[in-house]
Amino acid sequence: MRATVIYGAGDIRVEDRPDPSILEPSDAVVRTVAACVCGSDLWRYRGIAAVPEPTPIGHEYVGIVEAVGDEVTTIRPGQFVVGGFLHSDNTCPLCRLGMQSHCTNGGGYNGCQAEAIRIPNADGTLLTTPEQPDDAMVPGLLALSDVMATGWHAAVSADVRPGSTVVVVGDGAVGLCGVLSAAQLGADRIIAMSRHADRQAIARQFGATDIIAERGDAGAEQVLELTGGIGADSVLECVGTEDSVVQALRSARPGGMVGWVGVPHVTDIPQEHMFWRNVGLRGGPAPVRAYLPDLLQRTLDGRIDPGAVFDLTLPLDSAAEAYAAMDQRRAIKALLKP
Amino acid sequence: MRATVIYGAGDIRVEDRPDPSILEPSDAVVRTVAACVCGSDLWRYRGIAAVPEPTPIGHEYVGIVEAVGDEVTTIRPGQFVVGGFLHSDNTCPLCRLGMQSHCTNGGGYNGCQAEAIRIPNADGTLLTTPEQPDDAMVPGLLALSDVMATGWHAAVSADVRPGSTVVVVGDGAVGLCGVLSAAQLGADRIIAMSRHADRQAIARQFGATDIIAERGDAGAEQVLELTGGIGADSVLECVGTEDSVVQALRSARPGGMVGWVGVPHVTDIPQEHMFWRNVGLRGGPAPVRAYLPDLLQRTLDGRIDPGAVFDLTLPLDSAAEAYAAMDQRRAIKALLKP
Repeated sequence: MRATVIYGAGDIRVEDRPDPSILEPSDAVVRTVAACVCGSDLWRYRGIAAVPEPTPIGHEYVGIVEAVGDEVTTIRPGQFVVGGFLHSDNTCPLCRLGMQSHCTNGGGYNGCQAEAIRIPNADGTLLTTPEQPDDAMVPGLLALSDVMATGWHAAVSADVRPGSTVVVVGDGAVGLCGVLSAAQLGADRIIAMSRHADRQAIARQFGATDIIAERGDAGAEQVLELTGGIGADSVLECVGTEDSVVQALRSARPGGMVGWVGVPHVTDIPQEHMFWRNVGLRGGPAPVRAYLPDLLQRTLDGRIDPGAVFDLTLPLDSAAEAYAAMDQRRAIKALLKP
Repeated sequence: MRATVIYGAGDIRVEDRPDPSILEPSDAVVRTVAACVCGSDLWRYRGIAAVPEPTPIGHEYVGIVEAVGDEVTTIRPGQFVVGGFLHSDNTCPLCRLGMQSHCTNGGGYNGCQAEAIRIPNADGTLLTTPEQPDDAMVPGLLALSDVMATGWHAAVSADVRPGSTVVVVGDGAVGLCGVLSAAQLGADRIIAMSRHADRQAIARQFGATDIIAERGDAGAEQVLELTGGIGADSVLECVGTEDSVVQALRSARPGGMVGWVGVPHVTDIPQEHMFWRNVGLRGGPAPVRAYLPDLLQRTLDGRIDPGAVFDLTLPLDSAAEAYAAMDQRRAIKALLKP
């Protein structure tokens, strides 16, 4: 099969690799219908994270089941499936607490930007659609694999409720999905921080009521102005830099909550923005499987279309160009079709 | 009147000062029935915080109203009152959100370890008891002023719910009140971290089901052992040192929440214990006024007796000895009687 392999910073190749097969009786093999490039894949592409050896890459996918192991009971060959960016057994104590991203038997995949993928813990990881979705539905379903569920996790972690005032820091695919999540959870006012017209447009489409283009002190001042001088009930931090974390903490009102899902490039959190303002911080890798049944239903019903974050579609063989486009911010998020 | 004044590290004096009087029409003057020394008062006593000039000290009190300003409507002279360690108007936007400790018109007092106190924002700060409480009730009511409400805030911030498994880090008066709060909020298992037999006994009396005497790695290991290998749903951080904050974060399970109320002696929070484990951190100065109606009722009903944290009672004139006893850990918390 054709599969994407990262060789080092800036070096993405699509090459022939062995077809995956059932290794454990709880496995499935899925023929990929669509995969995509994640902001977090860019770490290695940009040389921020090391690539010790050529490594298959990608962790987002939708596809059609090709084979299942003997113990798999909920998934059959031929079904269309969606799964999260980590696999989980969905039965361990942490899964039962809704923390499938910390499943004691879970983990990652061996590269999903490929024609086929081995999915461990198939029963605990995959959900099927009631029928084969049409092509227009595929990007939305693919987004559930990571960015939509991650934006949702930011909103849940930030305690967004009906009537909340919400600030979203970050206008990447996750931030935009955070806007959509806040709107679905009933937020009254959603302030998206974005400097790019195309992303502002999607934010509006997803439910943003206000846009702030400023950052830093000027951005914080604008948030105060829009929130009656006190700050937001909930803030979604969808970037992960020190500046964005501080921006998020400063945007919350006393007693407010920051949900952070931007993989942190910061080792310490400055507590001056937390304790004395009673501002909380919670989040981490999204437990996609916990949210997936609900998000899948919302997508199938047409209540959400998170697929709008994909503004570039390329054949799998052009994966290198997909990475370059996202790295150079020519694309918000690139979808790959095997 | 007699009042306690801190002159510098280790230098507490009780001296004659002018009687307080009504300065604003929203003021009350309260004749103190009991006051006490707070762990946070010890900062200045220990020279950790500066004392630029002799300063009246203390922020916890119960007493009898002596006079009220023209605008005060809910409090009358002769009534027994309880108030929190900060005053608040209870009407500003942050008060209405339950964040009275951040009231835009609020603040502190000019020393409550005194025979009388001027209480600004009397209507928004003080609650009356239905009748004059008997002497045995006074310590419990006094504890509502800070330590009980602060322990409660830790439990609320840590999201303690019926059935929760809770760890309490810190066996001072606040930590012990945290145990009591967790029990009142329905926690199933409450693990108190304490090395002192007398404090362990109060923790048990307040509802602790388990005691861990170890700290650091050994303490963290014990928490794991007692929590099925995953950690606690909720952790109450009631100390504020870097070690205790890390201990608290490490004690939480993935998806768990740390409520911190120990005034932080740490500038940065190590995020390694947070993001990758989906562990949240929330807390700060307790909005006492938000919790006071409920806590007052629980105390009057006899459902809680947080007064058990007072293990030393002295006349106001012996305030210096009260400080010394708490500083040397000869007392958990000292009550002062004018």
